[in-house]
This record gives sequence, C-alpha cells and structure tokens, in this order.
Amino acid sequence: MDSKKKSRYFDIRQQLGEQLKCLEGRLETQCAMVQEIQDFYRRKAELEMEYSRNLDKLVKSTWSRHKQEKQRRENWDKFSTFNCWSQLLEITRRQSHDHGILAEICGTHVYNRLADIQENSQRLFKKCKDIGSTSHEDILKILYELQKAMKTYHSYQQESKSAEEALKKVQSQKAKVEQQLSGKSLSTSRKFKKIEKQEDERQEKYSVNKLKALHARNEYLLNIEVANAAINKYFSDDVSDLMDCMDFGYHNSISGTVMIYQTAHCNMRNSHLSSIELLNDLISQMDPQNDKQRFLELNNQAFMLPKKFEFQPYKGDEMRQISAQRPVQDQLIQSFKSSQSVLEKLKLENDETWKSLEATEKSLTELINRKDVDVTSLFMEENTPPRSPHESDKKKAQRLETERYYLEKFESYTLSNNRISRLQAKFNAIKKALGEDTVSTTGQRVRNGSEQLVFLELSSRIGGLHHRPPSLPPKPKKRRIGRNPQVGQPKLFGGNLEEYIEATSQEIPTVIKSCIRVLNLYGMHHQGIFRIPGSQVEINDLKNAFEKGDDPLADEEDACDKINSAAGVLKMFFRELKPPLFPLPLFDELINCSRLDEQAKIDKIKELLLTLPRTIIVVMRYLFAFLNQ
Amino acid sequence: MDSKKKSRYFDIRQQLGEQLKCLEGRLETQCAMVQEIQDFYRRKAELEMEYSRNLDKLVKSTWSRHKQEKQRRENWDKFSTFNCWSQLLEITRRQSHDHGILAEICGTHVYNRLADIQENSQRLFKKCKDIGSTSHEDILKILYELQKAMKTYHSYQQESKSAEEALKKVQSQKAKVEQQLSGKSLSTSRKFKKIEKQEDERQEKYSVNKLKALHARNEYLLNIEVANAAINKYFSDDVSDLMDCMDFGYHNSISGTVMIYQTAHCNMRNSHLSSIELLNDLISQMDPQNDKQRFLELNNQAFMLPKKFEFQPYKGDEMRQISAQRPVQDQLIQSFKSSQSVLEKLKLENDETWKSLEATEKSLTELINRKDVDVTSLFMEENTPPRSPHESDKKKAQRLETERYYLEKFESYTLSNNRISRLQAKFNAIKKALGEDTVSTTGQRVRNGSEQLVFLELSSRIGGLHHRPPSLPPKPKKRRIGRNPQVGQPKLFGGNLEEYIEATSQEIPTVIKSCIRVLNLYGMHHQGIFRIPGSQVEINDLKNAFEKGDDPLADEEDACDKINSAAGVLKMFFRELKPPLFPLPLFDELINCSRLDEQAKIDKIKELLLTLPRTIIVVMRYLFAFLNQ
Repeated sequence: MDSKKKSRYFDIRQQLGEQLKCLEGRLETQCAMVQEIQDFYRRKAELEMEYSRNLDKLVKSTWSRHKQEKQRRENWDKFSTFNCWSQLLEITRRQSHDHGILAEICGTHVYNRLADIQENSQRLFKKCKDIGSTSHEDILKILYELQKAMKTYHSYQQESKSAEEALKKVQSQKAKVEQQLSGKSLSTSRKFKKIEKQEDERQEKYSVNKLKALHARNEYLLNIEVANAAINKYFSDDVSDLMDCMDFGYHNSISGTVMIYQTAHCNMRNSHLSSIELLNDLISQMDPQNDKQRFLELNNQAFMLPKKFEFQPYKGDEMRQISAQRPVQDQLIQSFKSSQSVLEKLKLENDETWKSLEATEKSLTELINRKDVDVTSLFMEENTPPRSPHESDKKKAQRLETERYYLEKFESYTLSNNRISRLQAKFNAIKKALGEDTVSTTGQRVRNGSEQLVFLELSSRIGGLHHRPPSLPPKPKKRRIGRNPQVGQPKLFGGNLEEYIEATSQEIPTVIKSCIRVLNLYGMHHQGIFRIPGSQVEINDLKNAFEKGDDPLADEEDACDKINSAAGVLKMFFRELKPPLFPLPLFDELINCSRLDEQAKIDKIKELLLTLPRTIIVVMRYLFAFLNQ
Repeated sequence: MDSKKKSRYFDIRQQLGEQLKCLEGRLETQCAMVQEIQDFYRRKAELEMEYSRNLDKLVKSTWSRHKQEKQRRENWDKFSTFNCWSQLLEITRRQSHDHGILAEICGTHVYNRLADIQENSQRLFKKCKDIGSTSHEDILKILYELQKAMKTYHSYQQESKSAEEALKKVQSQKAKVEQQLSGKSLSTSRKFKKIEKQEDERQEKYSVNKLKALHARNEYLLNIEVANAAINKYFSDDVSDLMDCMDFGYHNSISGTVMIYQTAHCNMRNSHLSSIELLNDLISQMDPQNDKQRFLELNNQAFMLPKKFEFQPYKGDEMRQISAQRPVQDQLIQSFKSSQSVLEKLKLENDETWKSLEATEKSLTELINRKDVDVTSLFMEENTPPRSPHESDKKKAQRLETERYYLEKFESYTLSNNRISRLQAKFNAIKKALGEDTVSTTGQRVRNGSEQLVFLELSSRIGGLHHRPPSLPPKPKKRRIGRNPQVGQPKLFGGNLEEYIEATSQEIPTVIKSCIRVLNLYGMHHQGIFRIPGSQVEINDLKNAFEKGDDPLADEEDACDKINSAAGVLKMFFRELKPPLFPLPLFDELINCSRLDEQAKIDKIKELLLTLPRTIIVVMRYLFAFLNQ
C-alpha cells in the first residue's frame, strides 16, 4: 500500500513533467509555424520587389526610348492612341509603386512583426514555465506532506493498536491475578499493585497513542482534502490559465499581421479600381473625329480649300455671265436637258450605292466590334477550350471580303458624288443663265440657296430674331463614313453640332436657346457681359445639366443671378465644338475677308458660309440675330 | 496671266500630293504607336509570366518542404496558425494563376489584336490612297479642261476681235471709196464691188468668230463652275470621308484591346476581393480557445485530472471522517478559526492582485493590439516619414515592463488562488466535522455547495422541472486570463457556454430553453425524436436565428412542424460547444464512472460535476430535469 501511494506521487510528478514537455513542444510548433510564415513573407517580398523593379524598368525604358526618338514622334501627342499608350505606362508605373510598397510591407512590416511574435512567445513561455514549475513544486510539496501524514497516521494507528493490545494484555493479567488472589487482600499484594501500576501506565500510553492516532487521522484526512483541492484547482484552472498566459497576444499578433496584409490587398484592389476607371476614360477618349480635326489643324496647309477659280476676261470683254443669246440658247437648253437627265440618273444610282454602303458598313462594324473583349472566362480555373483557328480564319476571310466590297462601294460613291456636284454646278449655272421661268419645274436646291442668302442677309443686317423665317424643306441627313451605328446621344460640349442637332431634332440646341434667352432678358444692360467670367463651379454645373439634356436656366428668377455664368457656358460651348462652328477648311478664306471692304466682305462671308450644312446655317442665323441686337 | 493660271494648276496638284504624303505620315504614326503599345504588352506579358512562375515556385517549394518535414510537423494542422499559413499559400497560388492568365492576355490576346490592327490599317490605307488618287486624277483632268477652255476662250476672243477689226477696216475702206466715187455709179465700180464683197466676207467671218467666242466664254464659265464645285466638294467632304474610311475600325479596335485589358483588371480586382474575404475569415478563425482545446485533446494523457486521493485506512480503523471528539475539538476549532482569518486575508489580497492583473492585462492588450495595421498611408504617393526607431524602442520597453509586471501579478494570483482552494477545502472539511451549528456565521460557499448537491440530486432523481430552486446568491464571474476586453457578444454555436451566459445574463440560453419548450410540448410522443435528423436547411436557419439572438421557435404552431429540426439544432448546439459541456479533464473519470454501481455512479458524477462553474451546473440541472421526464 505504501508503494502504491509512492507510485501515485511519482505518477503525478511524471504527468506534470510531461505537461511541461508538451507545452514546450507546443511553443516550438507555434514558433516554427511563425518562422514558416516569416520565410514565406521574406520570399514573397523578394518576388514583389523584383516584379516592381521590372515594371519600373519597363516604364522607364519605354519612356526613355520615346524621348530619344522625340523628333520622329513630335506629333504623337495629337493622337488619342498616344494618350492610350502613355496612360498604360502610367497604370504600370503605379503597379510598380504598389508592388514596391507590398514588398516593403511583406519584407519589413509583416516580417518584423513575425520576428517579434516569436521573441515574445519564447519570452512569455519561459516565464510561464517558471510559474508552472513553482506550481508543480507546491503540488509536489503537498503530495509529500500527504505522504508524510499518511505514514504518521499509519504508524500512530499501529502504535495505538499495540498500546491497546499491551493494555488489554495487562488487563487480562490483572484479571488473572484477581482470580488467583480471590479473597486475599488485593490491596496488599505486591504483584497486584505492580500489575495495577502497569495497567495505569499502559492505559495512559494507550490514551496518548489513541489521541495521537486520532489526530494523525484528522491530519491525514485534511491533507487528502488539501491535495485533492490543489490538484483539482491546478488541472481545472491553473494549467488552462497558464496556457492562456503563454498565448497572451500570440493570436492577436498573428491576426495583426494578417490584417496588415489584408489592408495591403485592399489598397491593391483600389488601385485596380483606379486603373479600371482610367481605362474607361481612355476608351471614351478614343475619338476618331477629334483625331481627324487635330490632324487637319496640324496640316492646315495641305487640307485648306484652295481659292476659287475666278473668270479671267479677255481684255475688253465686258461680259462675265453665261450668255443665253439666241445663237447659243438652243445649245444651252439642249445641254440643260441632258444634264438634268444625267443628274437624275446619277443621283438614283448614288442613292443605291449609299444604301449598299450603309448596309455593308453595318456588317463590317459588327465584325470589327466583336463582343469578345471579356476575358473573365480565362480567369476561371477551368479554361474553356480556345476558339479553333479554323473559325478565326473564317472570320478573317469574312472581314476581308466585307471590307473589299465596302471599299468598292465607297469608291464609286465618292467619285460619283463628286461628279454629281460638278454636274449640279453646271446645271445650276445653265439654269440661272436661261432664267428661272424657263426651268421652273426643276431645282429645288437652287431656290433654297437663294432663300438662305436672303435670310442670312436679313438677319445679319436687321437682326430679325422675331422674323421667323419660313421653314425650310427637309434635306436628307449628311451621309457619314465610318459612324454607323451611332451609339447613344452624341456629346453636346466638345461634340459635333451637326450630329447633335440631327440626333436630338432640336433645331437650336437648348444650351444656345436658353443662354440667349437669359442674356436677352437680363444681359443686355449688364456691364461686362461676356468679359467678366462667371463662377467656374456654376459654369460646370450648367454644363453638366445641359449635357444631360436638362435646362438649368429654365427658372428665370434663378437664372437672373447666373448671367455671367450663362454667358460663360455659351462661350465654352462654342469654344469646345468639334469641328468648330466656322470650319477649318474655310479658315484662311474667312480671315482674308477681313481685308475686303464692307459690302464685299459681307457678300464673301455669306458665300463662304452658304457652303455649310443647312442645320449649321440655321444656328448661325439665330446667333447673328442675337449678336446684331 | 496664262502662267498664273498654270501655276494654280500646279499649286493644286502639289497640294493634293502633299495631302497624300501627310496621310501616309499619319498612317505611319498610327502604326508606330500601335507597334509601341504592342511592344509594351509583349514585355508586360514576359514580366507577368515571370512573376506568375516565381509565385508558383514559392508556393510549390514551400509545400514540398512541408511534405518533407511531415513527421516533425504532424500536429501542425491542429493550430489555427497553420490554417493561416496554408491559406496565404492558397492566395499566392491564385495570384500566380491570375498573373499567368494576365500574361496570356497581354502576350497573346491583346498582342495579336494589335498586330491585326496594324495589318488592317495598312491594307485600308493602301486602298483608300488608290481611291484618293483617282479623285485627284479627276480633279486634275477638270483643271486641265478648265485651262483648255480658257485658252480656247482667249484665242476665240482674239480671233473675234481681229475679225471685227478687219471688218471695220474694210468698212472704212468702203466708206472712203464711196466718198471718192461720189456721184459716180457705185454699182459699176469694180473697186467698190470688190470692197463690198470683201466686207461681206469679213462680216461673215466676224459673225462666225463672235459666236465661237461667245460659245467659248460660256464653256469657260461653265468649266469654272465645274472646277470650283469639284474642288469644293473634294476639300469639304471627299477628303474627310476618305480619312474616315482609312480610320475605319481603328479606334474601335484599339478600344477593344483596352477593354480586354480592363476586364482583366476587373478580374484581378475580384481576385483581390476574394483574398480579402479569405483573410477576413482567417482573422476570425484565429481562435486561442479552440487551439487550446485541440491541444488538450491531443495531449489528453498529460492534462487529464488524476484520480482523487482516497483515504487509505489502517487495517481495522473504521473511522473515515474527521473526528471532532473532545480531545481534538479544541484544536480543530483553533485550526478552523485561524484558517478562516487566513482565508479572508488571502481572498482580499487575491482580489487586489486580480484588480491589478486585470488593469495590466488591459494595458498590455492595448500595447499588443496596436492600431497600426492599416498600411494605406504607405500606398499614398507621398509617404509619411517612418516612425522614429527611438519611439519604437520606447514602445518595446513599455511592453516589456508591462509584461513583466503582468506576469508577476499572474504568478502571485495563480499561486495564491491555488493556496486559497487548498485552505478552503481544509476549512470546509473542518467545518463539516465540527457541524454547521458551531460555525453558522461563516462559509456561504459551503452552504451553496451542499444546496447544489441537493438540487442536483432532486432533479436527477425526480425530474423537478417545476420545483424551481430558490435563487442562488450571485457568485463573482470566472476570472479569465488573456481575454480582456471581450469584444462584442460571444459566439453561441461553437462558443464558450460559460462566457455566453455571463455576457447575455441569460441563466439558460434561449436556444436551450426554446428547443426544450418545443420538445416538451410536441416531442415527447413523437417517434424517433433525436434520432430522425431534421431538415439541414431548417436547422441552419434556426441556428442563424439563435446566433443572432432571435427565438425562431417562439411561434408554437410554426414550431410544431419543426420538431426534428429543433432536436437537431439542440444536439448541434451541445456538440459544437467549446469547451464541451462535460469538460475534457473530467473525461476519463466520467467514463470510469460507468463501471460503478447505480448509487455510486450517481454520487461520483455529482461529485465530479460539482467542480464545474455554477452557471454550467444550472444549465445541467435544467437539462437533467428534461431528460429525466
């Protein structure tokens, strides 16, 4: 029984030792895992840094090559493609920056924290292990006490038993003596006295021992309670607390490093969002019309309309018009009639060509704007099989064939269109020479031309805003190459006025009408109108509202306070138009006009402007009416 | 004048040639820019591929090392840190995949499209240039005609003039002859006849020439009209259309490549979002309590509560309780009194220690959970200066000092706490021995203990759900190491029951109360209850509702149909508790109980369970009451 007790003491001592070993192993694992994560971040940091440097190198070498070839590329920035290229570089530059920061975060911030975590865990563990050892010592001391108390109890019990037996023995001796000496004076028997004395002694010894044993049992029982309480408390609470204390901050600190990495990812994600927005802007800024206009401005000399051919009379020849005198009249009439029939035939043919052209353009556009720009499927883990090369070849062949047919149609359309213009000019001239009466059945166009002249004159001279001109007959829309189908409503600011008017069917766009209405109401006696700039914020608000199709100046009381901004937005609108209101090919000729005297200038400008589309002439007339007030 | 005319012809021819040259330059620029973008994407693709490969290598080499060291790392997956590490690798693996796809997109998809764009532009340009040349030929032919018409006009005018002069000359001769021959018979004069004949001849020649000149002028004038119309049409429309045709699809195709890149960025962005969510999960899965429990399960042998020490009586000693017989009573009373005063003193001291510990823990937690996990500022282009190393050192010193003080307090708290338990056990044993009457002034705790015993017995024997026990006096909350401050409401499912009850002040959590109420109402005669599984969807819905703090079983009619799911959710709740309802250190002892006979088993289980926290005992009593029905 004693050995059993002893073995329990050793069992528990061994179990406690085992605990410390387990905990030590736990610390090692925790640190090894942190070390592994640290290694991972270190290597990740190297990768990120290398990637960042490579991206940076790519951007820098591309730019430096661009600078070296500056002379050969001096006009590049006039193209929207260039903007596209430079913004791609800018996005890459930012990626380089981001990944550089990520490298720093992985290699320094997270890495150092992980080193701290290991250091902290080891230090905490060491101290907690010491505390644990102290606890163990306490427990073992208590178990030792328990062992001792048990031994004491057992030995005292033994002693108490033997004292009891000794007492019993002397008591039975005493009874025997009493029997032997029955009748004799017991009080005088020496033997009896001796026995009696012995009994007293043994009685006392037994009492003492019994008390001792009682006491030792109490002590033993109390020690059991104490030992059980100590062990129970230790196993239920203390060891758990000890582990909590060892782990103090470990999980939180690991979470902290994960959070750092997470916020880094958030920032990377936001960078991607900026890139996506930038790419979106790029797409909306890819503007063929703008590119074309910039190119024409840049090469003004080559694309400027040459001066008109003027009649060079033979000296002394006073006559400057086509003569319809008798001898040539018949021939003219003949010529007129044949022109007329050829013209009609050509126009019909040309209309047919246009229809084919339009249809082919639509097909070709569809072939070009293939809907396959979404690469999301590639990012899926299970890749869809790539399209067969056969299909791609077929698409290409289809495109080439459509394109060939389109160009064929375009060629015949363009050439015949020019021929029609020439024939029409000849026809008009002959008609004019023969006099209108002769040819009243034909030439709607000519009449329109002269009517327009009259209106322009009227408005520029008298300012006939209130003389509404008789409405003009509808004219077919301008036929445009390469803009089929028009997507959505065209831009107002920075857009094409003609296309805007066509698309919205507003004869005078709201922005012009509304600004001029407000300027007429409140601006005419407003000092500095068109000179004092309005509020930039207000102008932008007005611009955005007009762009959306609203009329922000509809409320007159409100508009009254925005008079300078209304003038500003109107100026901005005309400044940003592409092409400008006075088109580029006419620029030189219009400038030349300023050298002419008053009447000649007006005639010449009228003549030049009448070559513009009808819709633009209507707007100009409206403007002149306002400006002549 | 003729040379001037000629020079205008050459001027225009030159201008048209210049146009073609400009357009050729334009094409070259457009293609060079596309080439530049193509180069950029090719190099970007290489970078992306390298980065992707490096990331992949990092992941693979890390995993292969992990597999090599498998034996040393067999318990790693029991730690939440391991999950953290493996998920970081998983995120990196996906980054590798994404950048590989990006490489493919840049190097193949976008690159090939850009090649197509160049090819298409060049082909279109070549054809459009041919069309332009044809237009130019037409115009030059017309100008040539104009030149010819002008020459004809001039020469016919000249001829007409000279014929007129010749006529005038013969007419004046005729007049002279008439004067000379005045009175004579003119009709007979040969000279006069000759002159008259000459006059007729010249008159006819003049008439013919005059008509020719008139006709030539008309032709010339018409040619001017035609030439002006042709040039006007060409410069205003044709050249613009030609450029539109050359550009056909160019901008759209470039936009297409940008869109591809954009959708790639969108996908990268979404990947980041997934990573962020994954990291979020990691953070919420970093669970020290769970880690501790798994560790304890794994090392069950070392951390299992050893068997209680039992009283080992000396043979023949029948007494097994502490004796309060006269001879030792005084000593016991003495011991009782001194224990009592020491206990009170120790408890007061320990309370003070706990207060310091708690406050220090709060400071230490704040030092560990530094708020500097947001690295957004690093990503700003303008970096904030890094914190000075001095400040960082100061922080570290502060942490070490706080930690030292904390551990000191922890040590004295733990050791004295164990000592209190021991003393309390001793004190309780003595008090019991002396009998409650003697010591009625002390020991609230002891009374509670015995009351609990009685209640537990009651409920386990009679099932006294309706015998509500007299409410127990409040007991201080369990003191926990390393969980200060508790953030938010603790988890219900998979959480710590004791903490949940403390945080919500629900004596019996709603999930238990509500499920048991429903089971009592409808489940007692329901065949297969607790055996037939409920609907998984329904169980999850119930779980989520309870987790949120709602009572989804409040509506009895509704709950009646969900009886199996209610049983399921109750089972799930107990299954997922951490620590389990019957705590790990008691596991072996509870299992051992099954070998005891009926009464001993009940006594032993009661004894074991009474070491649990009071809150848990209340829940168990509630459960037993239900299960014993």
